[in-house]
This record gives sequence, C-alpha cells and structure tokens, in this order.
Amino acid sequence: MTGNSAFPKPTRRLKLGFVGGGQGALIGQTHANGARLSNRWDIVAGALSSNPKRARTSGQDWMLDENRVYSDYQTMAREESGRSDGIDAVVIVTPNHLHHSVAKCFMEHGINIICDKPLTKTVDEARELLVLKLRAGVVFGVTYAYSAHVMVRQAREMIRRGMIGEIRQVHVEYFQEWAINITDSGEDAPWRFKREYSGDSMTVADIGTHAAQLASFVCNKPITSVNAEFLVTGSPKQLEDTAFMRLRLNKTIPGTLMVSQAAAGTQCGLRIRVHGTKASIDWQQEKPESLSFTKLDSPTQVIDRGYTAGMLEPATHLVRMPRGHPEALTDAWANLYTEFAIAIDARQHGSTLPDNLVNYPDIVDGVNGMFFVDAAINSNKKGDWVDCEQVSKVNQHRAD
Amino acid sequence: MTGNSAFPKPTRRLKLGFVGGGQGALIGQTHANGARLSNRWDIVAGALSSNPKRARTSGQDWMLDENRVYSDYQTMAREESGRSDGIDAVVIVTPNHLHHSVAKCFMEHGINIICDKPLTKTVDEARELLVLKLRAGVVFGVTYAYSAHVMVRQAREMIRRGMIGEIRQVHVEYFQEWAINITDSGEDAPWRFKREYSGDSMTVADIGTHAAQLASFVCNKPITSVNAEFLVTGSPKQLEDTAFMRLRLNKTIPGTLMVSQAAAGTQCGLRIRVHGTKASIDWQQEKPESLSFTKLDSPTQVIDRGYTAGMLEPATHLVRMPRGHPEALTDAWANLYTEFAIAIDARQHGSTLPDNLVNYPDIVDGVNGMFFVDAAINSNKKGDWVDCEQVSKVNQHRAD
Amino acid sequence: MTGNSAFPKPTRRLKLGFVGGGQGALIGQTHANGARLSNRWDIVAGALSSNPKRARTSGQDWMLDENRVYSDYQTMAREESGRSDGIDAVVIVTPNHLHHSVAKCFMEHGINIICDKPLTKTVDEARELLVLKLRAGVVFGVTYAYSAHVMVRQAREMIRRGMIGEIRQVHVEYFQEWAINITDSGEDAPWRFKREYSGDSMTVADIGTHAAQLASFVCNKPITSVNAEFLVTGSPKQLEDTAFMRLRLNKTIPGTLMVSQAAAGTQCGLRIRVHGTKASIDWQQEKPESLSFTKLDSPTQVIDRGYTAGMLEPATHLVRMPRGHPEALTDAWANLYTEFAIAIDARQHGSTLPDNLVNYPDIVDGVNGMFFVDAAINSNKKGDWVDCEQVSKVNQHRAD
Amino acid sequence: MTGNSAFPKPTRRLKLGFVGGGQGALIGQTHANGARLSNRWDIVAGALSSNPKRARTSGQDWMLDENRVYSDYQTMAREESGRSDGIDAVVIVTPNHLHHSVAKCFMEHGINIICDKPLTKTVDEARELLVLKLRAGVVFGVTYAYSAHVMVRQAREMIRRGMIGEIRQVHVEYFQEWAINITDSGEDAPWRFKREYSGDSMTVADIGTHAAQLASFVCNKPITSVNAEFLVTGSPKQLEDTAFMRLRLNKTIPGTLMVSQAAAGTQCGLRIRVHGTKASIDWQQEKPESLSFTKLDSPTQVIDRGYTAGMLEPATHLVRMPRGHPEALTDAWANLYTEFAIAIDARQHGSTLPDNLVNYPDIVDGVNGMFFVDAAINSNKKGDWVDCEQVSKVNQHRAD
Repeated sequence: MTGNSAFPKPTRRLKLGFVGGGQGALIGQTHANGARLSNRWDIVAGALSSNPKRARTSGQDWMLDENRVYSDYQTMAREESGRSDGIDAVVIVTPNHLHHSVAKCFMEHGINIICDKPLTKTVDEARELLVLKLRAGVVFGVTYAYSAHVMVRQAREMIRRGMIGEIRQVHVEYFQEWAINITDSGEDAPWRFKREYSGDSMTVADIGTHAAQLASFVCNKPITSVNAEFLVTGSPKQLEDTAFMRLRLNKTIPGTLMVSQAAAGTQCGLRIRVHGTKASIDWQQEKPESLSFTKLDSPTQVIDRGYTAGMLEPATHLVRMPRGHPEALTDAWANLYTEFAIAIDARQHGSTLPDNLVNYPDIVDGVNGMFFVDAAINSNKKGDWVDCEQVSKVNQHRAD
Repeated sequence: MTGNSAFPKPTRRLKLGFVGGGQGALIGQTHANGARLSNRWDIVAGALSSNPKRARTSGQDWMLDENRVYSDYQTMAREESGRSDGIDAVVIVTPNHLHHSVAKCFMEHGINIICDKPLTKTVDEARELLVLKLRAGVVFGVTYAYSAHVMVRQAREMIRRGMIGEIRQVHVEYFQEWAINITDSGEDAPWRFKREYSGDSMTVADIGTHAAQLASFVCNKPITSVNAEFLVTGSPKQLEDTAFMRLRLNKTIPGTLMVSQAAAGTQCGLRIRVHGTKASIDWQQEKPESLSFTKLDSPTQVIDRGYTAGMLEPATHLVRMPRGHPEALTDAWANLYTEFAIAIDARQHGSTLPDNLVNYPDIVDGVNGMFFVDAAINSNKKGDWVDCEQVSKVNQHRAD
Repeated sequence: MTGNSAFPKPTRRLKLGFVGGGQGALIGQTHANGARLSNRWDIVAGALSSNPKRARTSGQDWMLDENRVYSDYQTMAREESGRSDGIDAVVIVTPNHLHHSVAKCFMEHGINIICDKPLTKTVDEARELLVLKLRAGVVFGVTYAYSAHVMVRQAREMIRRGMIGEIRQVHVEYFQEWAINITDSGEDAPWRFKREYSGDSMTVADIGTHAAQLASFVCNKPITSVNAEFLVTGSPKQLEDTAFMRLRLNKTIPGTLMVSQAAAGTQCGLRIRVHGTKASIDWQQEKPESLSFTKLDSPTQVIDRGYTAGMLEPATHLVRMPRGHPEALTDAWANLYTEFAIAIDARQHGSTLPDNLVNYPDIVDGVNGMFFVDAAINSNKKGDWVDCEQVSKVNQHRAD
Repeated sequence: MTGNSAFPKPTRRLKLGFVGGGQGALIGQTHANGARLSNRWDIVAGALSSNPKRARTSGQDWMLDENRVYSDYQTMAREESGRSDGIDAVVIVTPNHLHHSVAKCFMEHGINIICDKPLTKTVDEARELLVLKLRAGVVFGVTYAYSAHVMVRQAREMIRRGMIGEIRQVHVEYFQEWAINITDSGEDAPWRFKREYSGDSMTVADIGTHAAQLASFVCNKPITSVNAEFLVTGSPKQLEDTAFMRLRLNKTIPGTLMVSQAAAGTQCGLRIRVHGTKASIDWQQEKPESLSFTKLDSPTQVIDRGYTAGMLEPATHLVRMPRGHPEALTDAWANLYTEFAIAIDARQHGSTLPDNLVNYPDIVDGVNGMFFVDAAINSNKKGDWVDCEQVSKVNQHRAD
C-alpha cells in the first residue's frame, strides 16, 4: 500500500559511503535519514571528517565498521573501489569548495556520486565535473531535495498537463533569518561567509540555487536570464546575505526571485507561485503537504498529498503515507534516495530506467545552478540583465 | 465601548456630495458605505454621472433630494457652495483623468476634497493641485483606504516604537486577476486600459500606488528610488498589467514591490512584510484582522485586532468591534471618513487636531503616489534606477 | 454592482428607534452600525437608558433630536406611534428580562419589532409574545446576526440543494473567554450572571442560542432533543458558564453543541461543521469570508464570498463587496437590517415579499431559542435526553 | 546537531522482528519506517502473514534473510529466542484479536514487545497481558504514536509546568471519513467492522483510544468516567462508526471526545484543545509542527517545533530537524522506536533509564485504553455515566 510499489522492487540494499557529515553536521544526518527511510541503502563507510579524531568518533556514532572509517577521501575511494562489497555510491557533504575534488576522485574510481548543492565553487569546476561524469558513465545525483516532495512533483505534472494554461508569471522566494547577526570576521565565522570556500556568493549559491532549481523544475523551463541585486541586510559581511532578482524563464516568461538569510522572523520560507493563463499553483516548503490550485474566478482547491481525487502520476507513486498522515522533509529526501538507488541499480544491470518514474535532480541541475549563480553575480556587478548559460538534459530518461 | 471614543465627539453630521459613483460604480458605494458606517456624514448631493439620465436615476437610487442631483460638477460646486446647508466636502470618484479638474473646481469654491487615488493623470496636475490646496486651505484627503485598517496602524506604531529594530527589508505585493483576459481594444474596454484616461500607466497607477503608499506609511519612510519593469502578462494591451520593482526607502532600505492585475488565482492579494534587525511584521489585506509579529528565533505572535494585550495606540482608538467580532474593509473606509470629518470639523472650528489621533492619507500621499508612478515609468523606459521626488508632510498634525 | 440590487429598491429610508443601547453598550452600536451600513434606516429616536441622565447624554452622542430622546420606553411608544413621522420599528437592546415588556408595549402601539436574543427570560413570555405578534401583524425580527453572513446563507443553500448529500452529523461550538475570572457576587457583576435577569441559564441562553439557531438554520432542520450538561469552569457563579450537549436534529440527525464563556484563549469561536453522505461544510465566525467544502476523498474547496464560481443564490444577492474585499460582522448586521426594512416596507405596502430573497431570523427563531434553552436546562437537571418543543415557520415567505 | 544527542548513544542497532505487516498492510510499513528512521534497529525477521505464500513474498519484499521468514509466529518466537543473534523485540501488527496470543507467546520466550493499539480485544485479555508483562520483566511498548510528536511532548510539558494554569476543559476529537460507505456484510468487509475480530467496538477501539490516550497523556491525568453515545452515521454496520462522549479527567475536569470514521470531508482530524485558568493549547495531528498557545486576552503564540525560544525539555531532545525543516508522522514513529530501543538497551544492560528522557506509551496505556473502551461501551448501553478503571504507571521511569 505504500506508493513506492510502482517502482521496480529492489533485490538488495545498496551500499553507501559518506565524505563529510561528521559530528555536528546536520546535513550529513539529513542525507543519512533519507537513505535510511528509503530502505534502499545501508550506510557502510565514511570519511566523515578531515579531522582524524572526529572522523573516528563520528564513525562510532554512525555505527560503522571501524575498517571502513577513513580519515581521507582518497584512501576511501581507493579502498572501497577495491572491495567486492564496496560502496555503490558516495555522498559528498563537505564544504562546497571541496565538492569538485572529491567528486572527481570517486568518479575516477568508477563510483556513483550523490553530491550536495551548490555543485562546486566555480563554474569551471562544474563544467569539468560534467565532462568527467559523461566520460565515467556514473550516476551523479545532486540533492535539490525540495524538488522531491510529492506535491512539488504534483505541481510540475499539473503544469505539464496544461492545467494552469500557459505560464505567465513565476515567483519564488526563500527567506531565512539565521545569518542576520553573524559576521564573517573571527575564527568561528561559518565557512559559507568566506570567499575562499564559497566563491563570490553566499546566499545565492546556498539557497538561491534551491529557489532557481525549484522554479525551473516545476515549470519545466530553464532560467535564461537574470537581473540581480546582491545586498547585505544583516551584520556586515563580505558576501551577500540577501538578493532580489527579476528573471526570464525560457526567454519569455517573467519572474522574480527573492532570497535572504537575514530576514528576521523567517526560517525556511521557500515558496513558489506559478500563474498561468487559466489558473495558478502555490506551494510552500514549510507546509509541504498541500498544494493550492486556483482557477480564474473559482474557489481555491487545496490538494492534499495522498491517493486523492486530483492527485496525478508521477506524484502518487511517491506517496508513502495516506492523506491525513503527514509526510515531510525526510520523506522528500527518502524519495531522492529511492530514485538514486533505482538509477544506480539500472546502471548496474544495464537496464533502462522505467519511463516517467524517475525525476531526480542530477549533475545537469547542478551545473545549471552554477550558471545561475554566475549570471547573478555578473548581473549584480553590471547592474543589468545577464543571460544564463544552460545545459539541457539530453539523453535523459524523461522527455517532457 | 466603541474605540472611537478617543476621538472628539461630533456635534452634528457633516454633509457630503459625490462627483461620480453612479449606477454600476462599485467605488462610489464603497466610499458611501464608509461614510455611512462612520456616522459622521449625511450624503446629500451628487453629480453621480456625466450622463444626465444616469445621474438622475442614480440620484433616486441614492435617495437624494432631487434638487441636489446635478448633471455637471461645475453647477454642483457653484450651487452647493452657495447654500447655507451646502456640502462640507465633495468625494471625487470619477475616472482618474477628471480628478484634477473636479478638485480644482471645488477647491475654488472653498469646498473640502476627498479624492480617490491615483490623485491625477499626470505629475504636473498633481503638483498644481497641491499648490491650490495650500492656497485654499481646504482639507484634502486621498483615499488610500488600506492604510486605515486598524492592524496597519498597529504595524506602523510597532515599527515606530522600534519593536522590529531597524528596518532592513520591505516587501510589498498586490496581485489581482481581473484584467487577465481583457484587452484595450473594442468599445467596452475599461477606461483604465487607455492612455487617454490613465496616462502612461495602468496597474502601477491603479494598485501600485496602493502598495507604495502602504509601504511608505507602515515604515514611515519615503520611497526614494525605484528600479521597475513593466510587463503585459495577460491579454495584449497598451499599458502594463504587471510590474516588478526593486526599491529603496529612505535611500538605504532595500525593498521589492510586485503588482499584477493579470495574475490568475488572485483577488486583492495585497501583502506587506517588513523585516527589521530584531523582528518582522506581516499583514495581508484579505485577512486584515490579524498581524503576524515574529521576533528572531521566537514563536510567531498573531496579534488580533481588539483591546488586547499587544495592541497599541493609535490603533486601539479606531477599534469599532471587540476582538473576535471581525471588522473588514468597510470599517477601514469608515475610519478614513471619521478622520476626514474630524479634520474638517477642526478646520471649521479653527481648532487644532488632536495629537496622534489622525493619520489619514492626504494630498501629500497623493502627490507622492504620482511621483512614484512617474519614477516607475521612467525607470522602466531606462532600464535602470530612477529617483523618486518626494513631498514631505510639513505642517502636519503628526511629526513622527 | 452591489449585490443588494436583487432586492426591491427602497424609495425612502425607514425610521428607527432604540430602547436600550446607551453609553457603554456595545450591542447598541452594533445594531446601529448595521442599520447605517444598510442605508435603509435613519435612527431618529431612543430611550437609550433607564437612567434619565444617561439617556440624555446618549441621545446627544447619537445626535438624536432632543425631542425624540425619551427616558422611558412607554412614553416613547406612545409618542412615536402618534407622530406622522414616527418610527417604523423599534430595536430592543435592553437586558434580557425586559425584552418581553418592551416588545409587548410597542406591539400594542402597532410598531414593528427588532429584538436582540435571547427573546425573553422565560418560555412563557416567549409564547405570549408570539401570540401578540400574530395578533398585531407586525414584523418581528430577532437578531441572530450570524445567520445573515453571506457564507452562512451559502452553506444553507448548498445543503438545501443536496450538495453534501443527506445530513449525518452536525457539530457546532461557541467558545469565549470573557467570563473566566468574573464572579456573580459584588455590585459590578454583570446582570447576565444573575437569575433575576437571566432566568436559569447564562451561557446557553446568551450564546448557546446563537449556536443552536445557526445549526438549525444552516441545516434547515429543527433541534428536536438535547442531552445537556451545565458546568461552571471559570470563577464560581450561580449560572453555568459552560455547557456540553448532544443533540438530535429532526429527530434522527445526531449532533454536538459546545459552549463556554470561560474557555481561556478563545474570543468568539463560533464554528459549524455539517457532514453529509457526500461532503461536508465548515464555517467559522471569526473568518466569515470563506466556507470550506470538502467532498469525499477530494480536495477541499475554499469558497470565498463574492460573485465567484461556486457561489449561489440566495447568498450572492447579499454580496456588498467583491471577492477579495473583505466583509465582516457589520456587513452581516447590515444584511439583517436590509431584510427587516424590506419586510416592513412590504407590510406597509401590503405587498408580498420577494420570493427567496428574505431569510431573516424572526420571532419563530426567538421562540425556538427559548424552547432550546428550556430543554437544555431540564436535560441538565434530569441528566437525560429531553425533547425540544418547536414552532415551525408557517405562513412564512419561504418554504424550503 | 540532531536533537537525539541528549539520549544515551547506542553501541549497536537492535534486532527487530514483525508478526503481521505483510503485503498490503500499511501499518507494518509505518512501524518499519519509524524503526528505520530511528537508526536504532535492523529488521531481521518476520512472520509477516498467516498466509504462507504471502509471508514468503512479503519476506522478499522486506529483503529478509529467507531463513528468518516464518509462516507462524510460534515458530518465530521459538527459533528467534534460540539464536544468539535473535530479535531484541517483536512488533505485533496483526488484527486486534490476535494481539493477546502473539504477545503472550513472545513474552513466554522473554522477548520484548512492541504492540499496536488497541492492546487486545477484551479487557480481560489486557489484564492478563499486564500480569504476564510484570512477570516476564520485558519492555512492552504500545504504539500510541501521536503522543511521540515533539509538539505533543511540548504541550504536555507546558501544562506540567503550569503554563496554562489549572486545567478546566479538555476537548479532543478524531474525525475520519474512510468507513462512510463501507458495510460489514460481504467477504471484503474489513475485519475491523466485525465483532469476532474487534469485540464490541470498532471506532472507539480503533481511534477513540488514540484520542483518549492523547488527552490523558497531554494533561497527565487519567480519564475517570465517560458518558458515551455510539452511533452509525455511515452505511449500516454492526459496530459503531461514530461516538460522542462527555468525560471527566481526574474525576473533576470536564471534557468532550468526538470520534467518527464516517465524517465526510475528514482524513485524520485528530485535535486536542486544553483550556486552563490562564491559557489554552491547541494541537492538530494533520499540522503537527506547531502548537498554538494563547494566554487570556493575549495574542496567540504559534510555537514551531525546533530549538526555538519557547521550546522546552523534554520536547527539544527529540528534535531531529531544525525549525522550518518539517518533521511529520514518521518522525513521531521514529521517536517511539528510539525510546523503545533505549528502554530495551537499558534492560539488557541492567541500567536505569535516563531521567525525564523516555515517555513512551507502554502496556499501562494499552490497558487503560481497554478500560476506556469498556467504560464507553457500558455507558452507551446504560445511557449514563460510567466510571473508568485505571492502572497507574507505578515504578515508572518518570513521576510527574
């Protein structure tokens, strides 16, 4: 009765290793919880910290076999690729500036990649990873997890079927408050605030990429140009903690994108609104279970996640709990980890992916995210519109 | 037990006349309902339509004495100013391009003005009215009615007292759908869509001015520059039905302003969010009875209109019904008409206005609205930031 | 463009007098505001207080002609009935125990009655008023104002058309907090708490009657039996401040009714939910503008007041402001006062009422309210089910 | 950074087996998902169905070692208790009438029990299990999962600290619609509808027990008497699909409890409201992330789950994701499975449980649930109040 029954059944759990994610790292636990809930993975190895002692104690916390707790990722890549029971994929949850080296190393050992976003520190690194990925033939997922919520899939499908008519306006925003009183000076300043780790953007790279990917995914249209302004609205810092943009999707559709990590009174205020010629949809990350759908001059329909009138494939096959039994963020992560497992399983068996079933964000989303950040940085410098480069998902499993 | 008890008690109802607002005109009824609910006015005269027959039948509908139903505003101004029981104020609810002539005419007869927004068709007309108003010494209200909601006054007062800290971001939006399928061709096309009546802006002039005035009022800061893009997202038309802007308030505070009258699935989606260094406020026109107030890292407080802990003067004195007994838009209009009456009464008695009690929008708001529209038009043409001219409320009853 | 256009147009405003409602009395203002907003009434006379001095100063506050400010209701009835421009109706907003005498007196002078609820202190008084009303032939409205909200009319109509199927469960609740720390001892104790003014019930009589009338009105079914428990959950007092009941509507439909005036954290928490064989509706007084309608296994539809797909006659003709322009409690009162005026106008002209247009609560609702209170009191004493007597609306304008 | 860090760290994952929960059984997946997300358990064995073929294919679906897939629970209990790597606990998710035999069997083999609710079919069976449990010394959890939501723990703690004053009213309701069109005739009728499986109550046993346990847990008070009415409001069936009750908690506190599985338009509408002398709390299962807290005459505070001002131990140590990153039902189940694991670990190591950290529902809640059902059945028969028997949590880890 779980929705996942539409997926090909697994015959075994895959093996997963982590680089980064040691003690104190929330994002490591978030990935791990998604993997556990998916029931498609066993977490068996890790280079959980670049600090050897923390790597070891984190390994104990994770209840890993001590032989598979590594203090550097190169050793981990080499040893795991040599084992008959080696990891099927590596999760990369290091600070952003290391994604490139770690991903490159594991791809060179033929290991599938699950990488956090933003993909890299620079556009050039992102391009290089894409070339390497195509050469290595590995599966390369990038964890834009919001796009794996059932109701985000539902929104995308409704739009794809023309239920809102032609798209005419897209508004996406992501407001947080955590950085409001943080400066980038001092030893304790988070790495995110510093150019050496984050490149030329903090907030746009960190959560702007989420907002951009969500807009692009839900509308199934690329962001083709941006007119961006970077701001510091919290305590002084080198990099922006706030940015306001106007967008074009697919060259013609106007939109706006607002992000801040210094907006008092907000937590994870990610929201997307798409207005078409016939109707609109509205989805909010903090209340992910329902999607508002309002036709012109008509009552709003609140579509609740579940096997309900109004719910559509390919959203329903991801339903884990019936309507009224709330799912949330970990369920979205589990959806991602389920899709990653299916893709890797298909690669290992030389089979093609089931049509319409797998929509996970991958390196193409990751590279496009970097193009978006780059265009935003340049637009902010120029004070004018800048085009976004785009890679399209060629040879992908799904043609929309 | 009604909140209005803080106001000076009226000794008689004032007399009100209307120019425009005849049959089929919602805005006339809206003004009239506000005046009636305020219990400060009797509606006694009108040039309700430029069509004589409609003027007459509208006069019957309004139950006006037939001797005070006029078919042109000039006659009305002349006759009413000559009567011992003539009108104390005229309400101007004609199409925008006539506001200037009508206001000018009534001011020349010494009659107080209550004018709908936007103030005029052009900036020059607005400037001229301001000069005439200062010369005539009349009261000149402009009906930015949203700023008369109790919880908008509350928001302004909380900010004024520093309860959100320093203002760091302001976001205001106003989304409607009604113009999505309307074009400006054909005889039935609304006058709003045509340059000859509306000047160079439809939506920014019509509802953008509301959004801008609300932002400026709540924050008690002028909008000093705009970076605007005008768009047509509904059916083709000469003037914009949508605009997205970035703003500066008081030269330093960044903000955004989004307006559309072609956003499917929306009605009167006016919302303002102000984020400060310590907290934020959030108010929505369609749910005007509560104000969200969220301090950093704290539970959201939902402040409901009423005589409740958390409610402050000068909001509470406008409370008409206790908490839990909902007020709404007509109550906001009644607040306006109460304040207009108090101001006119004070003028007639040569008395000064009670301190802190009267915050109605007036010709200064109207002129600033026109400057805002003008700056937005120019910014859209230039594709760059444009400064907004500003008049400040000198010699006003309240210095904040 | 106002919804009231479906009503017969008035040719003059009717004249209204008040008994009770003087200084400090919220309920008087509430009635008066409804009358003003309806634009069908001029308030011209009053015996606003039994205290002569307060009657006089209240009369000044209300800007009444001093000749029509009375210090006792008998004089007012006599004099007003003798004037050619005498009042068309009297509003009775005295403490409950006086409703009977005042109504009787004015009916004896042939004056139409608008009486607050509960109708009387005792069932016998209520019966007597009904007899007198039928004999006098006057219009006798009872101000169960919640049933005049547009969306309550909409709910009733949807149910009448079978849109929820057969009614199977009805749940109504009304929670307030104001009496939690009030006792009935001391001079300042409100009259509501005392048997001499309120009879054998405080909260059930005061707000239980609202809840019961709303349930009965929306479902168009009588309450035929109750199983009630009276409680004091706030500070000690003679009469109940809380009651929980099980009900039967129309002998077969089970329901519940909960009321309290000592429920901390609540204001006017009146809510009705009706579950049928096919769907349910849900309406809340504090958010009166929308009605939730949920079919089996389907998205909830949020029907907003306005001229919108999904809105039905006889709700739409009451619409005063378009969707997105919120109405609220005073609008509901204005609907009542509009309907009272139409009924009185029809009586004066010997015409029949427009079919389907008028659904105002009247003395029948008032009498049934008293039967309900009486049955609840008896059920609480017996600890068992007690049948409710019922008067049906024979010879009424509308047969459902 | 996950909240669970306050718990004692596990050194190994415990081993879990299932009786029931095979293909098509949602509840089995729900338990399993909670266990997986907790990261405290490996699911290693199962008698997943009484149908041998389904047991086998379900075992494959669950990726169990085929040697540990059993076709009857007796064999499973015997063999698992004999293995050095045998299960640490068994989850019982069979139809209700089998809980007793299965639990008895596994307790006889010294295996810890995690049993779904209601505990048994009859009160006598429940009593017997309690005796056996005390004798066997095993840990015996009963999965009233709603009481493991972080914000339910928060509500309980706020009440325990006196933040709402003395409790004066408790209202709990649980509305579902799924049984509205189901009858108990025909082969496909669910077992829940039949006396032979469910005893003398369907809905009260199935979800009434949830509501009762939640009320009792949040208030930390026993339900001491009930006045219940059982109804069939959906299609005809032997057992009730709806019940309305009045309650007493701790002999003095009045409350209401409403449950239905035939209320069109509802899914899992579990809600609890507790009103005290100073404030109230309000929590809804379908929006589990926030708790409304309203003091007398004050703004409502919406307390969001997270490490936020206003959040208290022992709720915060269960926080898995920060505020704004929604948790949901599976997180509540994971909290339960974490607490079960800690309790079993403590038993195995002969250590005492960490004070204040573990509040899982256990056999005492299960037995009290059966007493509640029994009292409700008897009250419905008698048409009067019936006292509830109660077991108190003696020798429990926490004395409140």
